[in-house]
Amino acid sequence: MLVWRLTDLQAEMKRVKARVDDLILNRLLPKSSTTKEVDLLYRMMQDYPMRQAKGMRPFLCVTTCRAAGGTEDDALLTAACIELFQNWILIHDDIEDGSELRRGEPALHRKYGEALALNAGDALHARTWEAILTNEANLGLERTFAVMKEFSHMVNETTEGQHMELGWVVEKRWDLNEKDYYEMCTRKTSWYTIASPCRLGAIVAGEGGAVLGQLREFGIGLGIAFQIQDDSLNLTGDQKKYGKAKSDDILEGKRTLILLHLLAVANQGERDKIVSIMNKKREAKSASDVSYVLSLVDKYDAIGFARKRAAELMKEALVALNGIRWTGDREAAEMLTSFARFAVEREW
Amino acid sequence: MLVWRLTDLQAEMKRVKARVDDLILNRLLPKSSTTKEVDLLYRMMQDYPMRQAKGMRPFLCVTTCRAAGGTEDDALLTAACIELFQNWILIHDDIEDGSELRRGEPALHRKYGEALALNAGDALHARTWEAILTNEANLGLERTFAVMKEFSHMVNETTEGQHMELGWVVEKRWDLNEKDYYEMCTRKTSWYTIASPCRLGAIVAGEGGAVLGQLREFGIGLGIAFQIQDDSLNLTGDQKKYGKAKSDDILEGKRTLILLHLLAVANQGERDKIVSIMNKKREAKSASDVSYVLSLVDKYDAIGFARKRAAELMKEALVALNGIRWTGDREAAEMLTSFARFAVEREW
Repeated sequence: MLVWRLTDLQAEMKRVKARVDDLILNRLLPKSSTTKEVDLLYRMMQDYPMRQAKGMRPFLCVTTCRAAGGTEDDALLTAACIELFQNWILIHDDIEDGSELRRGEPALHRKYGEALALNAGDALHARTWEAILTNEANLGLERTFAVMKEFSHMVNETTEGQHMELGWVVEKRWDLNEKDYYEMCTRKTSWYTIASPCRLGAIVAGEGGAVLGQLREFGIGLGIAFQIQDDSLNLTGDQKKYGKAKSDDILEGKRTLILLHLLAVANQGERDKIVSIMNKKREAKSASDVSYVLSLVDKYDAIGFARKRAAELMKEALVALNGIRWTGDREAAEMLTSFARFAVEREW
Repeated sequence: MLVWRLTDLQAEMKRVKARVDDLILNRLLPKSSTTKEVDLLYRMMQDYPMRQAKGMRPFLCVTTCRAAGGTEDDALLTAACIELFQNWILIHDDIEDGSELRRGEPALHRKYGEALALNAGDALHARTWEAILTNEANLGLERTFAVMKEFSHMVNETTEGQHMELGWVVEKRWDLNEKDYYEMCTRKTSWYTIASPCRLGAIVAGEGGAVLGQLREFGIGLGIAFQIQDDSLNLTGDQKKYGKAKSDDILEGKRTLILLHLLAVANQGERDKIVSIMNKKREAKSASDVSYVLSLVDKYDAIGFARKRAAELMKEALVALNGIRWTGDREAAEMLTSFARFAVEREW
């Protein structure tokens, strides 16, 4: 089997993303009936989509569709909708987390204030559904409906996962274990990052139950692995490549696998100090608070532990993926396999 | 023609709302697969729907459907979706405006914090689309699609109108006239309050172009009239009935018709003082600032002016409504006519 090199995969993601971006930006032009009063709203909706991003999700949608016997063109609009979804959820996520940076630039609410940014996220959410509806012309009513049902499931899972993560911070909860983290990640990340993009591609190609079930397993496992790598990059990554402020997760009090492992292996004194630091409000955390947590992450090699888990999860996910008998483009199927490695080895 | 008394109309709204509430609360029960971690999210999603509300929008949807020859049962789920929409948009609106009260109780973000409330709004938005999809079982694919397209249009208009209103505050704009206000109200209020609820009812009943065009005219005009009455109640109403904090619009710097008229007729000194008060941040406005603006509202009878406009707009809206040749329940058609009066005469 041909194994795709990461640089080739990245080139392919870039290629698909460029096609999807064209579709998205065309959709987000002000309508002729629109007064200039709302020009700014359109510029705000275009803001995140125009920033540099990996384009993983559209790639997964399009590539799975091809592997399942469909064409790239059939899946392109659905891929664009996933990207639209990703962009509005990030706008709201950045407000919820009080984040400063997104994709290397100030978060939308830092540029325009929270009220306008929140509303722009809602507007983009509405445009997402509007765009899905236009699938009808190409896919017909029934398949468009199946796409919408998967989408609806995806948004439900994502908002539930987001609630779990935010709720733990608000309620200052630390009685959490690996399983809790996996549950939260499955909802917050796996569905919209891997499982649904792949399943949507398969649905567009006309696939049903069995393949969708395998893609569910693949997506959940790899999605958690992807999130673990994201958590690791947040603490160790090159901010320029990664695009978010370094150690933001500590400032935001995130319950990452790295942190939960650290709490499980640290001694009582260290544990108490970590919890008291993590429970402080963002603006109350000092640079030395962050350094202290990072020094313990190093001391106990918590990142090494998390990366080991990510590798295991990726392997299990591949078992699910390899269980699928693809009927379409073989090259596309091989790209999906290689993508799994990218998800846990990427540096950005 | 039988003219419905307001108390009868209110009883009818209450009856329809009770049926819609049953549907909604059933939809918002935690799913069996849901861990208890997300129980709070479900409680938050249920919070606004369980507060007392007029239930105008579901009433309009169901009643128009009956007038157009459909049944109440056909329209009930769509009516519930409009109510779901109304609830998530209010959650976000309250955050954007920094409101304290909603329907007589603390706004959701005052109870649970902004991050969780924002996300609960998104979750409810997703549930809205999920619920619309289930129309398929009763209405079939094509009609469900038509419902979704109207819904999509409605959400787009609402977010654009919301942007206009918030943008004027952020940009400290006061170079606005009646026409600007009508444009903003059409988008922010008319579509989701009157035009789309009526049109959705008609779509469910199988109506097409001509009736939908008339309902558009009816809805836009009456929607503006409704908003003017809302603005008046905000300054004069009984807070217990009205459910929002009195004079909140002044604290939020809203560009109401009342305020715009006041600025047009006040003398230069008064005008400068009003603008400087209105441009202050919410928390910087003193009680005497608010009293000053209210005293000028009285002095120039700006509310009288606005109410006159509302009455004119209602009359024009009725011309559009009376142009429709209803093919269904005559009693329902008469209720729509009487509703127009309610929209501008209500005290809550």
